[in-house]
Amino acid sequence: MTIPYPRECWYPLTWASNIGRALGAHRVLDEEIVVYRTQAGEPVALAGICPHRLAPLAAGRLVGDAVQCGYHGVTFARDGRCARIPGQAIIPEVAWVRRFPVAERMGLAWIWMGTPERADPATIFSLPQYGAPGWSAAQGDALAIGTNYLNLADNLCDPAHVSFVHLSTLGNAASEDIPVEHRVTEDGILVWRWILNAPPIPLFAKYGAFSGPVDRWHYYDYKAPCAAIIDFGSAEAGAIADRDDRSKGLRIFACHFITPVDDHRCIDHWMHVRNFSLGDASVDERLHADFRIAFDEDKDILERIEAVEARGSFRDRPRLRLAIDAAPLRMRRAVERLTAKREAGTL
Amino acid sequence: MTIPYPRECWYPLTWASNIGRALGAHRVLDEEIVVYRTQAGEPVALAGICPHRLAPLAAGRLVGDAVQCGYHGVTFARDGRCARIPGQAIIPEVAWVRRFPVAERMGLAWIWMGTPERADPATIFSLPQYGAPGWSAAQGDALAIGTNYLNLADNLCDPAHVSFVHLSTLGNAASEDIPVEHRVTEDGILVWRWILNAPPIPLFAKYGAFSGPVDRWHYYDYKAPCAAIIDFGSAEAGAIADRDDRSKGLRIFACHFITPVDDHRCIDHWMHVRNFSLGDASVDERLHADFRIAFDEDKDILERIEAVEARGSFRDRPRLRLAIDAAPLRMRRAVERLTAKREAGTL
Amino acid sequence: MTIPYPRECWYPLTWASNIGRALGAHRVLDEEIVVYRTQAGEPVALAGICPHRLAPLAAGRLVGDAVQCGYHGVTFARDGRCARIPGQAIIPEVAWVRRFPVAERMGLAWIWMGTPERADPATIFSLPQYGAPGWSAAQGDALAIGTNYLNLADNLCDPAHVSFVHLSTLGNAASEDIPVEHRVTEDGILVWRWILNAPPIPLFAKYGAFSGPVDRWHYYDYKAPCAAIIDFGSAEAGAIADRDDRSKGLRIFACHFITPVDDHRCIDHWMHVRNFSLGDASVDERLHADFRIAFDEDKDILERIEAVEARGSFRDRPRLRLAIDAAPLRMRRAVERLTAKREAGTL
Repeated sequence: MTIPYPRECWYPLTWASNIGRALGAHRVLDEEIVVYRTQAGEPVALAGICPHRLAPLAAGRLVGDAVQCGYHGVTFARDGRCARIPGQAIIPEVAWVRRFPVAERMGLAWIWMGTPERADPATIFSLPQYGAPGWSAAQGDALAIGTNYLNLADNLCDPAHVSFVHLSTLGNAASEDIPVEHRVTEDGILVWRWILNAPPIPLFAKYGAFSGPVDRWHYYDYKAPCAAIIDFGSAEAGAIADRDDRSKGLRIFACHFITPVDDHRCIDHWMHVRNFSLGDASVDERLHADFRIAFDEDKDILERIEAVEARGSFRDRPRLRLAIDAAPLRMRRAVERLTAKREAGTL
Repeated sequence: MTIPYPRECWYPLTWASNIGRALGAHRVLDEEIVVYRTQAGEPVALAGICPHRLAPLAAGRLVGDAVQCGYHGVTFARDGRCARIPGQAIIPEVAWVRRFPVAERMGLAWIWMGTPERADPATIFSLPQYGAPGWSAAQGDALAIGTNYLNLADNLCDPAHVSFVHLSTLGNAASEDIPVEHRVTEDGILVWRWILNAPPIPLFAKYGAFSGPVDRWHYYDYKAPCAAIIDFGSAEAGAIADRDDRSKGLRIFACHFITPVDDHRCIDHWMHVRNFSLGDASVDERLHADFRIAFDEDKDILERIEAVEARGSFRDRPRLRLAIDAAPLRMRRAVERLTAKREAGTL
Repeated sequence: MTIPYPRECWYPLTWASNIGRALGAHRVLDEEIVVYRTQAGEPVALAGICPHRLAPLAAGRLVGDAVQCGYHGVTFARDGRCARIPGQAIIPEVAWVRRFPVAERMGLAWIWMGTPERADPATIFSLPQYGAPGWSAAQGDALAIGTNYLNLADNLCDPAHVSFVHLSTLGNAASEDIPVEHRVTEDGILVWRWILNAPPIPLFAKYGAFSGPVDRWHYYDYKAPCAAIIDFGSAEAGAIADRDDRSKGLRIFACHFITPVDDHRCIDHWMHVRNFSLGDASVDERLHADFRIAFDEDKDILERIEAVEARGSFRDRPRLRLAIDAAPLRMRRAVERLTAKREAGTL
């Protein structure tokens, strides 16, 4: 299978706090990237391989705001142009590395892998509730998962798996047979289901917030190709009259920003934003402990599937498609369209 | 090299005692198999990959006598038919996994990889002495060997290697130049040699059973494609008049039942049956300690050869064929015929 | 990239002291070699794979001066001819392994990979100062490097990298912009540069030998395909009138003898010869401690480059060629010519 990589997009690169005056080595869309911050504090991302002998530039050193290759000292300015070749005055035309626009949003540095001129930081996704009054945000982990980013995106367009994968944290048996609904959005797919008059899930039950049954929801808001916001929460059964006004219950946005590393790896940068226990770092930690259990469960199943796909097992059998696959299938088509359109320059 | 896998056969799957109410993940003939025992105690083997998202079913859970996939809860009954798809009432036609007949014999569960209708447990090999009066049986190990099953089968049609590989246990220099004899049998090859009036091998010498020289024998009874019974023993020199009546000496059947895992791996399930020290568990253990030394020596040489074959070294040189190779070569032809015949449906 | 391997050459095989009465397994030019010493003390190298079942001969045993395969006892004399096949009297024509001439020089055993008749030990490189009065020699390590031998040879025709890779030992910033000079020699390339009136490099500064600035030199004398002698040293600024008479200063020959293992591995056998602190083993050790730091730095950068090459990254971009690349490029052409000529039989 060839993995489609739309290029004219912003992708999460790494936590903004992870970028400093030490050179960082990253891989995005199967390309090496060297990342650092200038003396003035601006993040810089350059193609990570020296065009001279193919040494990774991250193994070199920062000289002011330029990167010096660790093998022969060929030095590239922050715009990717070669600023110095030790031992010679002439700088050949091929002496440059590609520069990638970088911008910071929601605690992450984002990289634009396409034509630099088309990079508009205003188009980077930002959750309105992030940093807003009445909401508390907490940065989670950068979880490396050994599969391509679309297999993870499947999982993030798919509330149905929660009932079977995350029984100790995010799901319980009450939801097993509730069908999911979805609609195509401007930039992706929205998938959801409500479980009415059911016991609270373990994560909320721990907080003792509910004495009786609850109405609970999952909205998976996938923005192609690399972001998914999972809005989930619970309220006392019957308390929510208008389903579009879910802030009356306990509500959490679990945000997943996926870095496609290569055809067999991705990184899930996850964080959450919630409307309760504001500013309480101990609640951050307790929620993250549960999220780590749940996301490790996803990682485990996705990596097992990757192993099966890598071995080519099952190539002779038709795949079984279910009702719950409608959203993931549309997600994949949306990514393919995005790849085609943006490559064709029509976006 | 393409490894031939006859399909219309019983193959050893795992020790029967290894199958219970926890799902087991196995690979046979390069296929994933999930294995468990029903509540009534019957062993079940199903194709191990869920046709929905390719999750390994062994990562799921047992629900009664059915297997529930750990990703979305798709559930397969013990006959492989889909019994439930959470969230939808309609079960598509492709919602099934293959069922493989399983039967138990000599402490092993055996799997039939071919057409289920042709599976007849009566055709599974069973050693007459196993469980018979005057004989003691002891289960050994499941030894994973990093090479294809035919390279191990070579070794099990080949008494000659014992003189060089197993000097501390099963062989000694007295046999080095004794030619081997063989004849084709109904279901494989029989290969043997007698070493007359020679010192006992280390394994028997340990028991102090012999004061003088012995006559000793090796009969390698290979049953294509995956069983080999090595009948070896010793008697005082001259004591055995009729070579077909070898139970007058100390006699051991070392039984090897090979699971072909894939083109680069197999598992040797070995056990032994003997006519001395009946029921003495300490003798079981002492013999197994020696067998472990010997079979690890085989594993070592076979894995070294596998590494050479995997690198493609020696591809430019003609191979040297020896007199002792007659039996292994016939073994390979027998397996190829079995593969061809059974595929063609003439068996 | 296909790595050219000239065959009609002597290659370093291993330290002479490493060859004894235990069988050694080596790989040279992607071929398995079994190595040992006869009872009379002569080194022997034979093709390392038994033509019978492809067992590595190094897993067998020495019987007198012959190698006995550990699987079935097929035995090869020191000239590679089969001396014995247990169990049969006839030795087939294909029962032989290739013999490779071996000779010892400068503490190393050298192997001739080409036509045995053309092997002349007199053509093995030998440094005149090795073992001569006024000079001290010390054997270093066999450093395994995970890249092909030509990438290491690049490094050994390249004084310029020292200013950037070896700042704590062999280089300093004073040399960064000094161009390198080179000329083609009878058997390779000589590359050099002088750094005049500069601070001593850390390695020499440690010895406190200089109170003021020094003139220092690097001469990289590469002999295709597998030897490089790095003549480097320092003298008080202005003290050396004739650049060809460098023994007036502190002078070290760092000798690198490369074994091409296969397309992704080589071994750098290094030693040094110096004109100061003669016979002082503590100076041997102090110098080697610095060399280990420096050569590990080379290994690190070369293995990082290998990883980039192995991934095929950068295949779409033209490579940047610098003035300092003239010598390495000529080195590669010299190896290619050597490969072509010797294959054609004109050398």
